[in-house]
Amino acid sequence: MSRTIRVTVWNEYVHEREIPAIAAVYPEGIHGCIRRFLSREEDIAVTCVTLDMPHQGITRELLAGTDVLIWWSHARQEDVTDETVRLVREAVHAGMGLIALHSAHFSRIMRDLMGTTMTLHWRHGDSEKLWCIAPAHPIARGVPACIDLPAEEMYGEPFDIPRPDDIVFLGWFASGHVFRSGMTFIRGMGRIFYFQPGHEEAPVYEQPEIQRIITNAVRWAAPVCRLDGPPDNVAE
Amino acid sequence: MSRTIRVTVWNEYVHEREIPAIAAVYPEGIHGCIRRFLSREEDIAVTCVTLDMPHQGITRELLAGTDVLIWWSHARQEDVTDETVRLVREAVHAGMGLIALHSAHFSRIMRDLMGTTMTLHWRHGDSEKLWCIAPAHPIARGVPACIDLPAEEMYGEPFDIPRPDDIVFLGWFASGHVFRSGMTFIRGMGRIFYFQPGHEEAPVYEQPEIQRIITNAVRWAAPVCRLDGPPDNVAE
Amino acid sequence: MSRTIRVTVWNEYVHEREIPAIAAVYPEGIHGCIRRFLSREEDIAVTCVTLDMPHQGITRELLAGTDVLIWWSHARQEDVTDETVRLVREAVHAGMGLIALHSAHFSRIMRDLMGTTMTLHWRHGDSEKLWCIAPAHPIARGVPACIDLPAEEMYGEPFDIPRPDDIVFLGWFASGHVFRSGMTFIRGMGRIFYFQPGHEEAPVYEQPEIQRIITNAVRWAAPVCRLDGPPDNVAE
Amino acid sequence: MSRTIRVTVWNEYVHEREIPAIAAVYPEGIHGCIRRFLSREEDIAVTCVTLDMPHQGITRELLAGTDVLIWWSHARQEDVTDETVRLVREAVHAGMGLIALHSAHFSRIMRDLMGTTMTLHWRHGDSEKLWCIAPAHPIARGVPACIDLPAEEMYGEPFDIPRPDDIVFLGWFASGHVFRSGMTFIRGMGRIFYFQPGHEEAPVYEQPEIQRIITNAVRWAAPVCRLDGPPDNVAE
Repeated sequence: MSRTIRVTVWNEYVHEREIPAIAAVYPEGIHGCIRRFLSREEDIAVTCVTLDMPHQGITRELLAGTDVLIWWSHARQEDVTDETVRLVREAVHAGMGLIALHSAHFSRIMRDLMGTTMTLHWRHGDSEKLWCIAPAHPIARGVPACIDLPAEEMYGEPFDIPRPDDIVFLGWFASGHVFRSGMTFIRGMGRIFYFQPGHEEAPVYEQPEIQRIITNAVRWAAPVCRLDGPPDNVAE
Repeated sequence: MSRTIRVTVWNEYVHEREIPAIAAVYPEGIHGCIRRFLSREEDIAVTCVTLDMPHQGITRELLAGTDVLIWWSHARQEDVTDETVRLVREAVHAGMGLIALHSAHFSRIMRDLMGTTMTLHWRHGDSEKLWCIAPAHPIARGVPACIDLPAEEMYGEPFDIPRPDDIVFLGWFASGHVFRSGMTFIRGMGRIFYFQPGHEEAPVYEQPEIQRIITNAVRWAAPVCRLDGPPDNVAE
Repeated sequence: MSRTIRVTVWNEYVHEREIPAIAAVYPEGIHGCIRRFLSREEDIAVTCVTLDMPHQGITRELLAGTDVLIWWSHARQEDVTDETVRLVREAVHAGMGLIALHSAHFSRIMRDLMGTTMTLHWRHGDSEKLWCIAPAHPIARGVPACIDLPAEEMYGEPFDIPRPDDIVFLGWFASGHVFRSGMTFIRGMGRIFYFQPGHEEAPVYEQPEIQRIITNAVRWAAPVCRLDGPPDNVAE
Repeated sequence: MSRTIRVTVWNEYVHEREIPAIAAVYPEGIHGCIRRFLSREEDIAVTCVTLDMPHQGITRELLAGTDVLIWWSHARQEDVTDETVRLVREAVHAGMGLIALHSAHFSRIMRDLMGTTMTLHWRHGDSEKLWCIAPAHPIARGVPACIDLPAEEMYGEPFDIPRPDDIVFLGWFASGHVFRSGMTFIRGMGRIFYFQPGHEEAPVYEQPEIQRIITNAVRWAAPVCRLDGPPDNVAE
C-alpha cells in the first residue's frame, strides 16, 4: 500500500509558449504546475513530457514505468501520431491509469478508448460551480460539496460519451449549461478519470480543491493489476 | 404492441384545495391536468385516485389493473399508511411501472424502494433549464435538448439516491444548483422513472414538452413482464 | 409506433460456403435464416448483404435506410476495410441500431465502438445454458428464465469489454465457464446489443427462443432519434 | 492512508452452536474464523458481536466506532429487530461500510437497503467456480481469475436485486446455475459489498483466496466520508 505511484504528466505545451497571457498564468507550463502540487505528496513521483520531445514524449519504456498518465491537449490533438495513440492505448489496456484533463476529452486517445465522437457544446468566458454528486467516491475524499471556478470555459451537454461508470462531479455554468465534469471509466485493466476543469486562460490548477481532486484521482487510477501487455484471447 | 396502457394517477390533492393560488394553477388538481393530456393518447387509459378516498385510493384490485402508477405527493407524505406502501411496493415488484413526480422523491414508497434517505437541497422561487443528456433513451423521444421552466422550485445536489440505471435529464437552476432531474430504476419487475419538475405553484405540467416526457415515460414504464405477486425464492 | 423497422443483415458468409457441415446447418446462410424468422414480423422488413458484394455490401445509402444492422463475422474480421468500419461507426453514432452476433464481438466495428480488446476465453464443443437476469428488460419480453443450447462454442470470462449498460443474459457452460452473453451499450445515438450465441456449427438461430430474443432486440435497437450524421461540436 | 480500519463482525451464531457438523467446520464460529484472518492485517482491528448479546450486539456507540460491519445471518433473519435494522441502516447512510455474506442477502438490513425482494433460486449440495469479471476492481487485487469451491450451496439467477454498481464475481454452479456472486452498491455515504460464498457446512472462509477477497473488501468499504448521521435535507 505504501509504494510510490509513478505519474507521467504529458502536456501539449503549446499555448503556454505561444500566448503571453497564458504564459503568465502557467509560467512553468500546465505540466509544471501539476508536477509542483503532486510532488508534495510522499507517495507520488512525477515525470513530465511534452509533445515537442522525441517520439512526442511517449515511448514504450516510459509507459512501462508509468502508473498513471495525466494528459492535457488542445491545439494539436490531430498531430498526435498513430504510434503514440497505440502505445498509450495498449498501456491503458494493460493497466496504466489515465487522467484526461479538460480539452483532452477530444484527444485521439480518448476518442479511441471511448468509441464515441466526444462532441459537446462550448463557449469561452464563463464561470462554473463544480458540484460533487458522489461524496462516497475515493476521488471526492476531502472535497467540498461545491467548488467555485470564477473563470472557466463552458463545456455543455449533450456530451457524446459512453455511459460512465461513476459520475463524481457535475458542472453548473453561469450561461445556463450543465456538464458531467468528472467521470470514471475502465478500459481493459486501465482506470480512467476524465475531469473537465482546466481551461488554459485561468489558473484553475492552482486552486487547492482542484489539486485535491487530481491527487485523489492519481491514487484512484493507480493500477490494481498490471499486465505485460493488453489482455489476449485464451484458447482452453 | 397496440394494447392499451392502463394508468392510475394518485394525487395527494391537498395544496390545490387548500391554497387558492395553487387552485388557480391546477383547477382540476394536478391529477386532472395529467389525466387530460394523457387521455389524448390512443393507447393510454387513465384513472385518478386521491389520498382522501377510502383506503387512500389504493387497493390490491386497483393496482392489479394498473400498468403504470403516477404518484404526486408533498404535504402528507407521512400520512400514507404502511398498508398503502406495502401494496404499491408489491405491485412494483410484480411489474407495475411507477412514475414519481417532483416531491414524491420523498414519498414513503420511494424511500422504501430506493433504500436511501432521498434528501437534497431545496429552495423556492427559482427557475430551471432541463437538459436532456440521453437523447437515445425512449423517454427522450421527440424532446428538445433544453426545456425552460421559468418558475420551478430548486432541487439541488447532493441528492442521496442509489446510482440510477439511466440519467435522462439534468436540471440547471438559476440559483447555482444542478440536479439529476430525470432518472430510471428497476426494482423487481417494476420500471421506475423519477422526474423532478412539477412544483405546485407553477403550471409546469401544462408545458407540452413536459407532457411529452411524462407520456414517453408511461410507455417506457409499462410492464415487460407482470407476475401475480412479487418474485419469490425457488428451491431447486 | 407502427412504422416498419428496416433491418439489414450483414453476414460474412464464408463458413457456410466453404464447409459442407456448416452449409448443412445453414443452407441459406446465417443471414438467410435470420431473414426468414424476422420476415414473419409485420413491423420488420429485412435486407441481406454479404462481405463478397461490392463495397463489402456496405454503402452510405444502404445504412441511411437501415434502422438496425445485424452483423455476423468470424473468419474474415480483418478483411473488413477502414471505409466499411467508418461508415458503420458513423451510422451508429447517428442513431442506427447494431446487433453484433457471436464472434462479431471481435469485429473491427465492435472493437472500434467499445475501445477495449474484446478478448475472452474460448473452446469448441461445449453446451450452454442461457440465463435471463433482467426479466424486466424489453429484450427479455416473453423469453424463458433459462434456454438450453445443446451445442455451442464456449466464450468465457474474463471478457475485456467496457461496463455494459444492461446485462440481460448470462451464459453457463458445461466446461465450467460463465459469460456475459447478452449486453447493451449506447454509442452516440446508436443502441447496441451484443449477443453471444450463434456458433456456426449448430442451428442455434433456428431455436424459437433465440429468434424471440433477436426479434426483441431489433425493436429495442430501433432508433429513438436519427441524426443526419454523427453528433458534432456546437459553439454557443 | 495508514489509519486502522475498525471492523465489527456480526454473526447470528446459531448453526455453529446447534449442529455438531457445523461446529466442526467453524469451532470458533464463523465470526471467529473471520476475526482470525482479518487480525493478521496490520491495518485492521476486529471486534465480534452475536445475535444473543444484549441489544442483539448492536448499539449506536458500537456502530459509531465501526468503519466496516461484516454481517452473516441465516436462521434468525426475522428475529432481528426494527431497532437493530434502523441503527445499522443509519450508520450505513452516514458512511459505515457493510459486507453482507452469503445468506445475509436476505437479512432485513439488506432488503431494507436494496428495496427489492432479494429472492433467488437455491439448492444444497453443489459446487462452485467463482470467476472474477472485474480484474481492475480493488476487491479483485491479487485474486485469481477462477476460484474452486468444492462444496457450496447453489444460489442462482434470477436474483431480484437492484442493478449493482460493480459486478466483481460471477458464480458457476455444477448444477447448471449462474449467479452474480460479488457486487457493490452505495447507499447514502455507505459502501456495500455483497459476497455469495460462505454456506456454513463447508470451510469456505478458510480458503486463502476467499480471505483475500474479504480483506480487500474491508479496505474498499472503509468510509471515504463519515457523517454524524444520515444525510439530511438542506433549505438554501
